[in-house]
Amino acid sequence: MRKGKKPADVVIRDAKLVNVCTAEIQEGIDVAIAQGRIAYLGSAEHCIGESTQVIDAQGQYIAPGFLDGHIHVESSMMGVGEYARAVVPHGTTGIYMDPHEICNVLGLDGVKVMDEDAHRTPLKTMITTPSCVPAVPGFEDTGSFVGPEDVAETMSWPSVVGLGEMMNFPGILGGTDHAHGEVGATLEAGKIVTGHYSMPETDRGLNAYIASGVRLLPRIDARRRRTGQDALRHVRDAALRIRLERPAGAGRSRDRQRHRHALRSARKRRHASSHPGGRRAPRPHRAHGGSNWASTPSPPSRWSPSTAPSASRMDHDLGSIAPGKCADIVFLDNLEDLRVTRVLIDGDVVAEDGRPTFDLEPFVFPAWVTHSMHLGLDITPETFAVPVPEGASNTAARIRTIEVIPGKVGTFETHVDLPVIEGLLESDTGLDVLKTFVFERHHETGTFGYGFVKGFGIKRGAMASTVAHDAHNLLVVGTNDDDMALAANTLASCGGGMVVVADGEILGLVELPIAGLMDALPAEELSAKVHALEGAWEKIGCTMPSPFMTMALIPLACLPELRLTNRGLVDCTTFQFASLLAAQ
Amino acid sequence: MRKGKKPADVVIRDAKLVNVCTAEIQEGIDVAIAQGRIAYLGSAEHCIGESTQVIDAQGQYIAPGFLDGHIHVESSMMGVGEYARAVVPHGTTGIYMDPHEICNVLGLDGVKVMDEDAHRTPLKTMITTPSCVPAVPGFEDTGSFVGPEDVAETMSWPSVVGLGEMMNFPGILGGTDHAHGEVGATLEAGKIVTGHYSMPETDRGLNAYIASGVRLLPRIDARRRRTGQDALRHVRDAALRIRLERPAGAGRSRDRQRHRHALRSARKRRHASSHPGGRRAPRPHRAHGGSNWASTPSPPSRWSPSTAPSASRMDHDLGSIAPGKCADIVFLDNLEDLRVTRVLIDGDVVAEDGRPTFDLEPFVFPAWVTHSMHLGLDITPETFAVPVPEGASNTAARIRTIEVIPGKVGTFETHVDLPVIEGLLESDTGLDVLKTFVFERHHETGTFGYGFVKGFGIKRGAMASTVAHDAHNLLVVGTNDDDMALAANTLASCGGGMVVVADGEILGLVELPIAGLMDALPAEELSAKVHALEGAWEKIGCTMPSPFMTMALIPLACLPELRLTNRGLVDCTTFQFASLLAAQ
Repeated sequence: MRKGKKPADVVIRDAKLVNVCTAEIQEGIDVAIAQGRIAYLGSAEHCIGESTQVIDAQGQYIAPGFLDGHIHVESSMMGVGEYARAVVPHGTTGIYMDPHEICNVLGLDGVKVMDEDAHRTPLKTMITTPSCVPAVPGFEDTGSFVGPEDVAETMSWPSVVGLGEMMNFPGILGGTDHAHGEVGATLEAGKIVTGHYSMPETDRGLNAYIASGVRLLPRIDARRRRTGQDALRHVRDAALRIRLERPAGAGRSRDRQRHRHALRSARKRRHASSHPGGRRAPRPHRAHGGSNWASTPSPPSRWSPSTAPSASRMDHDLGSIAPGKCADIVFLDNLEDLRVTRVLIDGDVVAEDGRPTFDLEPFVFPAWVTHSMHLGLDITPETFAVPVPEGASNTAARIRTIEVIPGKVGTFETHVDLPVIEGLLESDTGLDVLKTFVFERHHETGTFGYGFVKGFGIKRGAMASTVAHDAHNLLVVGTNDDDMALAANTLASCGGGMVVVADGEILGLVELPIAGLMDALPAEELSAKVHALEGAWEKIGCTMPSPFMTMALIPLACLPELRLTNRGLVDCTTFQFASLLAAQ
Repeated sequence: MRKGKKPADVVIRDAKLVNVCTAEIQEGIDVAIAQGRIAYLGSAEHCIGESTQVIDAQGQYIAPGFLDGHIHVESSMMGVGEYARAVVPHGTTGIYMDPHEICNVLGLDGVKVMDEDAHRTPLKTMITTPSCVPAVPGFEDTGSFVGPEDVAETMSWPSVVGLGEMMNFPGILGGTDHAHGEVGATLEAGKIVTGHYSMPETDRGLNAYIASGVRLLPRIDARRRRTGQDALRHVRDAALRIRLERPAGAGRSRDRQRHRHALRSARKRRHASSHPGGRRAPRPHRAHGGSNWASTPSPPSRWSPSTAPSASRMDHDLGSIAPGKCADIVFLDNLEDLRVTRVLIDGDVVAEDGRPTFDLEPFVFPAWVTHSMHLGLDITPETFAVPVPEGASNTAARIRTIEVIPGKVGTFETHVDLPVIEGLLESDTGLDVLKTFVFERHHETGTFGYGFVKGFGIKRGAMASTVAHDAHNLLVVGTNDDDMALAANTLASCGGGMVVVADGEILGLVELPIAGLMDALPAEELSAKVHALEGAWEKIGCTMPSPFMTMALIPLACLPELRLTNRGLVDCTTFQFASLLAAQ
């Protein structure tokens, strides 16, 4: 670093520097790198010695590595190790990971395992401690619990940069010791509290929410349209933060979509080789994994440094190509589709031409991670009998159904009249109404809740999933009890995952033995399985895009309107349990 | 804070909010404040209870309190307590204080005393630990020394937010353990290293300087003109930081000027009452102390949050009027001259109509602070005899003089032929060349250096000062030995300060007993003394503005071109001692 007195480890020559600080392109720039950090920008001839690795950019653009400001890696269904192999080649050099899903299943010990998995990759993995485990206390049974003392303890972990999205806004607004204790423990440690607020009320509520010390994340922005263009009028600061905290180069931060796109990306590449004539139309905007999945080209004057690093007190290390910063650099062919051709992390070339150039050390997940199915009952076809609710007539019952909305996280509460057949209620494919069960799977309590879901359009068979937000209990939906039992037991025996069955046959199965959420397979192999699963959904009549994701949200009791947990139906507008029988 | 369920402590009604986050003015805004923080922005009727203090803004503008991103309070000649009384009424609610001057005299114990003085005021006082004590090791004797271990220790002090301007760029570029150890200790503590770089070379040197982990402060910006418009071309990031880190609402951060303006402000107010017809023309742009001294009105679209808080990891507390932030708020009549009419800090009204409304608890400076003159010799007129340098002729000597530049910090080295009178060199008012002495005053070493200074234009008498950057030894300049001895001994006996004498008479004296740098007087009284001192300078023939400040920089051995310390003349372009005799 001493003014070129020692040769650099790496010199990039003749690049077009995307300078996010000054919002300009600088041509003919060399970058000298020493000890993983940028030592010099300019004409770096003098930094080149015998041992220096010289990378001729040949006039390509170089930009700071993409940062994912908020992500639940579990939703990629991959462990962090394989996730890194999938996204780094597309330019992601750092992620802010909120391991909320595994924490619901395995607690902070599960978070630690993901941290360890991450450490064998060059991907910079910052952790925000999951704040809401369980998401909606009292309405579901999770595998674990996180409280203020747990949060305080994690703040000393080297990878932890703050508290994960505090979506317990009722707790914040109600002044609970739990929610405020977690916020306090984080602020006390000098770290950041990331937010998540989905209430339509944005005056007193949102003011109070922000005043608690929470920072809002970009996701709110996407919701703004739902809550009205002028909803944030009185909390303009919040609006600004939203804009500010969106990482540079990243589009909307709807992470579930993003992960899906990452998977699709892998699949698309597979298609390119093995199914060149596949019937799916090319989706170029989904052609790249990670943070750049939906980057919209913008004129250089609109560029600015990613604010994720400054929000997380890491802007001395990350966010721009400047002296002293980590040499996390992406090479780009052009600024239109942001196709990444080479990636450096800490000065090491970690990907070329869309392929990782780093190897993963082997990582063995412990048995308590890969054996997380702890059902407290034997599931048989009889388990799925739904007796007619008390108060209904002998012939028909008007019931609440959870109507799913394709591609959305919300649900509607829709009332449907079902016939009573031999004292029971059954799925009705004509009405597109299906029996739905959620079985507690963490502590062998044997508890389960049931209800009906509307909108999947399937005509036969059943589906099950242990990806079932946020408690990740065993979720089963189906047209008949035999197939529902088969689906449930298939997952019970393989350690969790997602399955589609019909007529006693398994049509598609994605095993997810890591906490019932992830597999350690490489992205390509996992993607093939997910693709096959999607095919199975189609075979039983579902035309919805990514129906397994829509299904996985059925138990998400923190979002409106109606949800089902292992404890029963939850009215998520009033946060009360709801009866199956609707008011006539 | 609970959504208005409890009454607010304070509600500001009907304000025009200067929203620095969204760069807009929002009219008709109420602000509810609870426990010193902003709880709500909007229509706050519901937050008003019986005990709520309601402040009707009557349509006035409110803006976030001004933050001074870098300041040496000692240069105001006031202790922090009185400094706060002077600047808070003009809108300064927080300062980032680098107590570099007192640290050179009294070490970190002196810094602690200033911290204690600050704690009795509502002014938020963040400290950056002085990094360069002494400023130029080996060329002068200071009262103290700061090294990496000292820096590491201060990082645990609650008021310390980082390392003060690392002006030892030769140490950084040369890779010394001292400079890098201080930077490392600060980064290790997760705090910021503030920079100061004044080299014209801005390619390899500035790259290496920034790569060390230092952040540049706005002062560099002012210097940019000196080093050429395109000097920073290759370190655009640095340029941006400079722009970014200028506090919102503040002009150039040339703190010495700023302090002077603060003093002038106080003086001007005094004039307004006691010297309404005084001959000084009104200087409206200097009429306000603190951060707003030179604020240039700019359209709202140019406003942005102060980045001092984010750079110092304090943006969760400071920098905007937003929920959860400290209620540090200024009321403004208009956005043209930014005249501040009311100031709130932590929700308390601390100033109204330019006057502080807070009282200071008494603070007694300890004796070791107020008795810092430790001269190791008796100074008599004979002490000031300057023998003709070896190698000169018997009749004349061509000598190096320090030519001061009015209103600038730099000096020129100018060569002048002086006659030899009875084997001695004497001051020559015809040539405007004056004898100059610097006496070590910290450790009774009795050492002193001498030389000649050119440019003050005085015709008689002598001046002395213990404000003599950065070692703050005893500096004496004069036309004759008797007056020089009188000036020196006047300060020796009063504990330090600044004095002008002529013909055996004291014409002006500002006693600065606190480390020889400050007094505990209120700004108005101190200002009157400083004004009298300026009058004394005029009486002996000096027409320079603020000549005592120009004089105080004579020993500043870190800036070009020629300086004088207690060890002798220093060539500050080559950092070598220089002989009095110039090459013929």
